[in-house]
Amino acid sequence: MSDSIARQKTSQSRILIHITFHQERNCMSILPPYTPPDFSRPELSNAPAVKVEPAPRDGVVPNNYHGTSNHPEYLHLGGGKWILATESRMDSVLILLNNTVDVVEARRVKKGDPVVIGRTENGEEGIYVHTTGFDPPAEAAADKFAFRTRGTRETPFSRSYDDLYQVLRHDRNNGYIVWVLGPAVAFDKDSRDAMQGLIENGYCNALLAGNALATHDLEAAYFGTGLGQDIYTQSLRPLGHYNHLDIINEVRRYGSIAKAIEELDLKNGIIYACEKKKVPYVLAGSIRDDGPLPEVIGNVYDAQDAMRIHARKATIVIAMATQLHSIAFGNMLASYQAQEDGTVRPVYLYIVDMSEFSADKLANRGSAQAVAILTNAQDFLVNLWNNLKMEEK
Amino acid sequence: MSDSIARQKTSQSRILIHITFHQERNCMSILPPYTPPDFSRPELSNAPAVKVEPAPRDGVVPNNYHGTSNHPEYLHLGGGKWILATESRMDSVLILLNNTVDVVEARRVKKGDPVVIGRTENGEEGIYVHTTGFDPPAEAAADKFAFRTRGTRETPFSRSYDDLYQVLRHDRNNGYIVWVLGPAVAFDKDSRDAMQGLIENGYCNALLAGNALATHDLEAAYFGTGLGQDIYTQSLRPLGHYNHLDIINEVRRYGSIAKAIEELDLKNGIIYACEKKKVPYVLAGSIRDDGPLPEVIGNVYDAQDAMRIHARKATIVIAMATQLHSIAFGNMLASYQAQEDGTVRPVYLYIVDMSEFSADKLANRGSAQAVAILTNAQDFLVNLWNNLKMEEK
Amino acid sequence: MSDSIARQKTSQSRILIHITFHQERNCMSILPPYTPPDFSRPELSNAPAVKVEPAPRDGVVPNNYHGTSNHPEYLHLGGGKWILATESRMDSVLILLNNTVDVVEARRVKKGDPVVIGRTENGEEGIYVHTTGFDPPAEAAADKFAFRTRGTRETPFSRSYDDLYQVLRHDRNNGYIVWVLGPAVAFDKDSRDAMQGLIENGYCNALLAGNALATHDLEAAYFGTGLGQDIYTQSLRPLGHYNHLDIINEVRRYGSIAKAIEELDLKNGIIYACEKKKVPYVLAGSIRDDGPLPEVIGNVYDAQDAMRIHARKATIVIAMATQLHSIAFGNMLASYQAQEDGTVRPVYLYIVDMSEFSADKLANRGSAQAVAILTNAQDFLVNLWNNLKMEEK
Amino acid sequence: MSDSIARQKTSQSRILIHITFHQERNCMSILPPYTPPDFSRPELSNAPAVKVEPAPRDGVVPNNYHGTSNHPEYLHLGGGKWILATESRMDSVLILLNNTVDVVEARRVKKGDPVVIGRTENGEEGIYVHTTGFDPPAEAAADKFAFRTRGTRETPFSRSYDDLYQVLRHDRNNGYIVWVLGPAVAFDKDSRDAMQGLIENGYCNALLAGNALATHDLEAAYFGTGLGQDIYTQSLRPLGHYNHLDIINEVRRYGSIAKAIEELDLKNGIIYACEKKKVPYVLAGSIRDDGPLPEVIGNVYDAQDAMRIHARKATIVIAMATQLHSIAFGNMLASYQAQEDGTVRPVYLYIVDMSEFSADKLANRGSAQAVAILTNAQDFLVNLWNNLKMEEK
Repeated sequence: MSDSIARQKTSQSRILIHITFHQERNCMSILPPYTPPDFSRPELSNAPAVKVEPAPRDGVVPNNYHGTSNHPEYLHLGGGKWILATESRMDSVLILLNNTVDVVEARRVKKGDPVVIGRTENGEEGIYVHTTGFDPPAEAAADKFAFRTRGTRETPFSRSYDDLYQVLRHDRNNGYIVWVLGPAVAFDKDSRDAMQGLIENGYCNALLAGNALATHDLEAAYFGTGLGQDIYTQSLRPLGHYNHLDIINEVRRYGSIAKAIEELDLKNGIIYACEKKKVPYVLAGSIRDDGPLPEVIGNVYDAQDAMRIHARKATIVIAMATQLHSIAFGNMLASYQAQEDGTVRPVYLYIVDMSEFSADKLANRGSAQAVAILTNAQDFLVNLWNNLKMEEK
Repeated sequence: MSDSIARQKTSQSRILIHITFHQERNCMSILPPYTPPDFSRPELSNAPAVKVEPAPRDGVVPNNYHGTSNHPEYLHLGGGKWILATESRMDSVLILLNNTVDVVEARRVKKGDPVVIGRTENGEEGIYVHTTGFDPPAEAAADKFAFRTRGTRETPFSRSYDDLYQVLRHDRNNGYIVWVLGPAVAFDKDSRDAMQGLIENGYCNALLAGNALATHDLEAAYFGTGLGQDIYTQSLRPLGHYNHLDIINEVRRYGSIAKAIEELDLKNGIIYACEKKKVPYVLAGSIRDDGPLPEVIGNVYDAQDAMRIHARKATIVIAMATQLHSIAFGNMLASYQAQEDGTVRPVYLYIVDMSEFSADKLANRGSAQAVAILTNAQDFLVNLWNNLKMEEK
Repeated sequence: MSDSIARQKTSQSRILIHITFHQERNCMSILPPYTPPDFSRPELSNAPAVKVEPAPRDGVVPNNYHGTSNHPEYLHLGGGKWILATESRMDSVLILLNNTVDVVEARRVKKGDPVVIGRTENGEEGIYVHTTGFDPPAEAAADKFAFRTRGTRETPFSRSYDDLYQVLRHDRNNGYIVWVLGPAVAFDKDSRDAMQGLIENGYCNALLAGNALATHDLEAAYFGTGLGQDIYTQSLRPLGHYNHLDIINEVRRYGSIAKAIEELDLKNGIIYACEKKKVPYVLAGSIRDDGPLPEVIGNVYDAQDAMRIHARKATIVIAMATQLHSIAFGNMLASYQAQEDGTVRPVYLYIVDMSEFSADKLANRGSAQAVAILTNAQDFLVNLWNNLKMEEK
Repeated sequence: MSDSIARQKTSQSRILIHITFHQERNCMSILPPYTPPDFSRPELSNAPAVKVEPAPRDGVVPNNYHGTSNHPEYLHLGGGKWILATESRMDSVLILLNNTVDVVEARRVKKGDPVVIGRTENGEEGIYVHTTGFDPPAEAAADKFAFRTRGTRETPFSRSYDDLYQVLRHDRNNGYIVWVLGPAVAFDKDSRDAMQGLIENGYCNALLAGNALATHDLEAAYFGTGLGQDIYTQSLRPLGHYNHLDIINEVRRYGSIAKAIEELDLKNGIIYACEKKKVPYVLAGSIRDDGPLPEVIGNVYDAQDAMRIHARKATIVIAMATQLHSIAFGNMLASYQAQEDGTVRPVYLYIVDMSEFSADKLANRGSAQAVAILTNAQDFLVNLWNNLKMEEK
């Protein structure tokens, strides 16, 4: 028991009183080391070189194409030379050209592109899918009977928060932080303020969202409402159902969000902070959109391409209150990032949602490494910013 | 109490034993009558004629434009002549040209188009929003204290089903039935069979969905799986994560869904039934898409335009297991339909979802007339088809 | 817009930076005034005196008994003398004896008790149910069309939090704060710490829960786990499924919780804080219980009686993460409290839960005045304590 | 593909058209065979005899007591003689007396009872926990990457239904079918009718519920409402909030449910069917109860004892729309049943609920063998009865 109490004392905690402790930690040690595959194992050292076949048509791949997962995948070029597919994602194919591999969506393949062939994973066809690179040393065998084997809203999230704080502090200077936001984040005053604070203080390298998030955030800056409801008092404003249409019309009149912010003298919010800090944002169109705002990308496959640019760089992703964007971006994300110095680090994916269904759904779409925090995005952001801002002072 | 029991006996019921009773009813009586506004009331008879202003630019509307709701809205042309805006939707504007009104999304407005101006609703500016046309005679005053004032999963849905059966039977010959489907409908054998049966027997005039529904339905026809999981046994097939990518690749190779169904000799499913019965379907793109299939509309605003064609005609809409498409289509739907003979009838909107949140969210986006049935789409479809097919024999 | 921004600045906010502002407010002004009924209105001044009939048997009430709501209810004693039923609750009956009224559950009625008769609410039978005592001045008419008329997880909760902080600060010295807790509160280190802090600092006058909350809280104090899962790291401890049984066995061996805390030298947690600060707690038994702990009340109607003692005194109730206890206690709570000086104040009921269903269900059981905050109880408690403890320093 | 289609044809389906096929199956083959442990394995053949220690006090067990799981557990009596603990449950202890083992809740242990000691599971202390008795032959290794590894509302339930139909048909004559019901089942006309049909036709050997289910079912029989809401039309009846109190008062007046059914001439419903068919039911009290009805067991530990009687006999349990009772009964259920002829068969546990959280929560409380069907209990019952009643005709 004394061991347990001692351990508890090491928590930095959502509760701010413990925060000083945290800052003594060596942040560089927080990333787990990566163990590459042992290519001297017989099944790998005897593996054949990988094969390719030309794509038969633009956007069509050959039979028996290899589809990527989000794990590190290595290709055997022959002679014991293996290369890692970097900037990977799931559900794409591998184009191998001049001993360089590129992970490409099938729709972007051109006729004749050399597509890697084979669906085995242990070297049989020169492909090795490496799922254990970040594993901790083996754990003891599990009990035959146990409670609480599934994550739910009753799972304790204290450490998840603490880990997240650490990674964010680390990656602010040594990574690429991507936020994926649903519109609910802009509907509440405190969470909107918190998100603004995070962006203004370097905790956001890219923001991915849809027309609704940007629209309602600008609506809040201009009218103090979200879809007509006061973001502080909850009161429904008279004729408030016009507000988001009016702000869209204003932005369309000025031709761009940046110009509208200037002309309308908007002074707060998420999009305001992105513009001020030159943080890139991608607004992907959807069939639910009013407007849209001029910056919204109407063709969803162009939007995917724009999002993928950030997926290639991401070291941590926080996706909140949007199943559509979370699954879309989760899908184009690898679980690892090869860094410039050749080392490999994990890519963290945090999902913040109210329902077990959303977290499970993401896992069911392949993003099993995602860490779910089941709570309201409003409180999540407030917690996060209350903690991280302590360092700003 | 005897009254209550008698009434209960009149139910046709999800339970099939009572089904013969139902068929004796006069289906034509099921639609509630519409009471037009009383334009002789002083505030309307004294109303000014409505005003318009030209749009300043393509896709930009004048200040003080009138935004539409999903209620019947009447415009005063002057001299006591009022016209109803037909084929309406919410969050759009009214173009009044040659005494004819068209309900147009702001993004489709052209420079100079005469846009109706004014935000009052009771005739003050020549606009009357009529919210009580389908109201039953006034009810007695409510108690000061009551239980169960909110609809939840515990609300009894027996009558909702019965009403729905009636409207579907009626509208099969006298209306336009639109289905809006999420991919989960194709993930289960029974629900997929049921949906196929409904389409093949005339209960679907148009189907709206995304790339995923069509992909997984074709995957089921070809592989018997949905995203790699057997749609009957739940078992995960070896390498099943390739299945949906493989079927997409096949369809892309053949160039169209119709051609692929023929060449691959597919014989069942939702899309198969649509093709066989020439039921139009709209597949709207989203950032979550793999592929996409060739028929998917990549630009979401083009997709909106394609969906709106069916919104203009719809008399009943059933939206299941998709928040994105449900809200999108709910947004472009009026609560009424002006028929060729000049009469006005309600447009029914049924939402089938597992969570109160989804039903509430649709209401919060303005579709307050939607009837929510909180259940799994699988069982809903099986119930529906078990009942409706009784007439087919 | 400037108005909107100004208003936003007055928010004290979950975000701590604004906290100083709040402390300047006059806390006594936070409670809305109560407007008693106007008994000079004809329907009240002409009302007959209320009638009673004797209960025919123990635990059986006469036909046409009057059932209570949670609103203020007044009885006419005759001659224009009306009395308010104090310490009321819903679904009970009124015993009128010697011009004093007592609100009693039907099961506690004794044969011959004079039970108030009548089911009208506007004085027709000498009973007046007053639903508008705390209403603000009349608001402007609502729009015919509006978004966001229903509360969901997307509702902005910033002000709900701020109001709650104020009421808790006020009622710490001038009210009776009751917490109703589900076991999940003890499953997470931070929320458990926060709840301990709230109790130790006077923000809890009574705690209502079940065997599970107490058991898992003591389990956490002894083993650092909740149902075998580490409350900080989430790891499942070897043989952890014994932990809660072991602590129950220990407490049963010592004969009481207080004795076990002393003997086992437990030093933290929710129950520890209650014992230390002499805060009364009621542990009501349920069929889900292991053990139980010695203090648990096995007969649920005895437990109801023990809970009702606190319901009679409560001025604010916060119910978290338990549908059973929330609805049970909501049921025995009035919406008002008659204070010693004769004034009437509201009783606040906050429901913290993850699902719209739980909040709706409480409303459907009559507690329509409840304020729902849809979030994880963990974050709710951390927010609360982060804010309230600022004053402690 | 032809294989997949063929397999699909073997489904009996929620869709009734395939029902004849099913009846040809040999129902006796549906139960999987049980493979007992191989006691000749060295770790078991060399195992010591199990040890016991006397309980130190009534309701207190010795240190290092062995706590039961819901798996088959065997005790070594010495000399190679092992006995199976029958009628087991989780979270209890083993009393070994005269070479007979009894699974007893700790609260029911008497001072001096010989309690089995030891927490190892593989024979080290004479205890063997056997988790693989019903396992099918080993399956092929799983892919390194797969979708849909978690059960959600999107999981296909067609086969779950078909399996359930089969087991119910089998167990109607060869087992013991227990239903655990939440009150929502009585709130809807169709589901209430279906449940009545199932009981009247032999598909229910015992019914477990609370005061609310019985109250609202009797309310429906008397008033046609559930908590004041018409169970068919959804309309709220005037003064309907009295209905459940009135029916409780009537039953209390008559002294018993059976007498009230007779005197009030009630003719339909769940409780009516139980009384008519002499199906035993246990109504366990809870702190949420109004009333209660006379048959309700107010002490929850007495209620547990009454429920356990049915748990000892159950071969299939269907728990619907109640987390409290589902977890309570799941807790006292073993995953196996030793039959009179010495063979061992599985005990099926189906959970019907709307939320992944409820299904996960049950699993987190140890009932990992539960089959979850995520849907509305209303539709589940209608499906079930539509299918099963086909045989009745």
